Amino acid sequence: MTARVRVPASSSNLGAGFDCIGIAVDRWLVASVTLGGTGISIRRRGTLSAVHVRADQDLFTRGFRAACAAGGRVTPEGVTIDATSDIPVGCGLGSSAAAIVAGALLADAALELGLSRAKILEIGTAIEGHPDNVAPAIHGGAVLSVHTPAGLVYSSLRVSPAIELLIAVPPFPNDTKAARAALPHTLPHSDAVVAASRAAALVQGLATGDGALLGAALDDVLHVPFRRARIPGYDAVVAAAQRAGAFGATLSGAGSAIVAIAPRDRSASVGAAMLAAWRAMGIEAELIQCSSTVAGATVTHIPQTVQPVSTEIS
Amino acid sequence: MTARVRVPASSSNLGAGFDCIGIAVDRWLVASVTLGGTGISIRRRGTLSAVHVRADQDLFTRGFRAACAAGGRVTPEGVTIDATSDIPVGCGLGSSAAAIVAGALLADAALELGLSRAKILEIGTAIEGHPDNVAPAIHGGAVLSVHTPAGLVYSSLRVSPAIELLIAVPPFPNDTKAARAALPHTLPHSDAVVAASRAAALVQGLATGDGALLGAALDDVLHVPFRRARIPGYDAVVAAAQRAGAFGATLSGAGSAIVAIAPRDRSASVGAAMLAAWRAMGIEAELIQCSSTVAGATVTHIPQTVQPVSTEIS
Repeated sequence: MTARVRVPASSSNLGAGFDCIGIAVDRWLVASVTLGGTGISIRRRGTLSAVHVRADQDLFTRGFRAACAAGGRVTPEGVTIDATSDIPVGCGLGSSAAAIVAGALLADAALELGLSRAKILEIGTAIEGHPDNVAPAIHGGAVLSVHTPAGLVYSSLRVSPAIELLIAVPPFPNDTKAARAALPHTLPHSDAVVAASRAAALVQGLATGDGALLGAALDDVLHVPFRRARIPGYDAVVAAAQRAGAFGATLSGAGSAIVAIAPRDRSASVGAAMLAAWRAMGIEAELIQCSSTVAGATVTHIPQTVQPVSTEIS
Repeated sequence: MTARVRVPASSSNLGAGFDCIGIAVDRWLVASVTLGGTGISIRRRGTLSAVHVRADQDLFTRGFRAACAAGGRVTPEGVTIDATSDIPVGCGLGSSAAAIVAGALLADAALELGLSRAKILEIGTAIEGHPDNVAPAIHGGAVLSVHTPAGLVYSSLRVSPAIELLIAVPPFPNDTKAARAALPHTLPHSDAVVAASRAAALVQGLATGDGALLGAALDDVLHVPFRRARIPGYDAVVAAAQRAGAFGATLSGAGSAIVAIAPRDRSASVGAAMLAAWRAMGIEAELIQCSSTVAGATVTHIPQTVQPVSTEIS
């Protein structure tokens, strides 16, 4: 048995949902696995061509191995993963989470491990360090993930069909580790109170499409104030999105991409305004526009006999 | 024209919704106003008998005057407010907010000021300092209120019919000012992150009835850890509620009452367990049990001719 998976991109945080909320985005990583031969090899195409990591340290491999371990199986001697993606890499669109989830799902499918989606989420979160991209990559749509004493709890959020996401992706990646290191150790208690009310506003705003709530939710105080200076043009792009009719805009993940939430009938002008603001600074960004209904990961099982032999290139 | 209002009690915070979320509770303040004579007088019955404040400084009066000012009117020369209530006073059940809202609504109705409910919320929030009791007192059900640059935004939260509130009210009040002074000036950033995720969990947990989310949401890190030592028996009552099947329990407002959220079929045993835990310490608490569907304030206009003359006693 071999398998093919299709895993969406994702935009996490959405302002006030820091490290707990993410939404699937209409860009895709597609990967298949073939068992046999010796060693682990990964063939990368599309945006993944920019990734140069040893196959045994790749996120596909880490997801694959962790799933094997969770299923009580030894990782097979020979594994070839063929992957292509149109998810921008290193721009805050969940490219890493997609690769981890793909690796874990490929192992689950090819080795018939019978892992639940909750277990895949647990595996992905352990490797990624936080669940906010992993959960929507698996489940699609917007997902809230909360750490509790009883383990990680996730829940699909209702998202109003009246809103749309506009994501402007600049041609430079962000350094996620540095972005995390930029966070302060403490916060004024009053800021934490604001942060909590805006996280509540994000859940309620997504569900109702209420622009005032979404505007408050996208104006985060937990992470964006400490990260935005790392993204050239951040303030100009956010302001341009708001002027064009967006409820607000913020970093996608830790950036470099900027995500706006807008009423559906303003989405074209919001997207154009974001690109124009960056273009005025000599930065050619790419636009991803999507609704709130992007599906989660899907798995196709393929009988071994019809699977073409993959060529090992890494 | 005179008027009568009926305003519900409310339980604010519900754990992680600190200063932004409250829910109407099935206890009521009923008040009517008569214009005429000279001076402001307030006749208090029920739980309000315990209130001994000069009439011109009473919360009814402050709400009444603020509404007159908002309506561009001078407060009438003679105002008599007749009020009775079964809302415990000083126990974290929104007795103050109910009085402010009642005063404002009485002015609005008796003087035909035409104030919107949003304006009444603004008035109440300005006097109370925070909107979390004022909003459900006006609108009923559970309400999220968020401060934004464009003003205070409120939104009615969906609440699953499968859950029930159990509120144990001890015979001693709490000192709200001291409870607020107990809060620290700063918090670890990581605690603020937890606080935000649990506020999101509260909105989603109320909407879905998801017990794991509600359990996380009721386990607050923003205020309860700094306040619970002020309420004798807090830990025992919360633990008893959980053992009896509640998703969790926490301070109602700043206390002294403790509110549990439980699945409907466990509510009787949860309520009994909370009372028993306090009784074991020699504290006889009172139980308020209610669903999530308690209505908001209502106003009845009464033609002046059929209004009995109120007796001034304060």
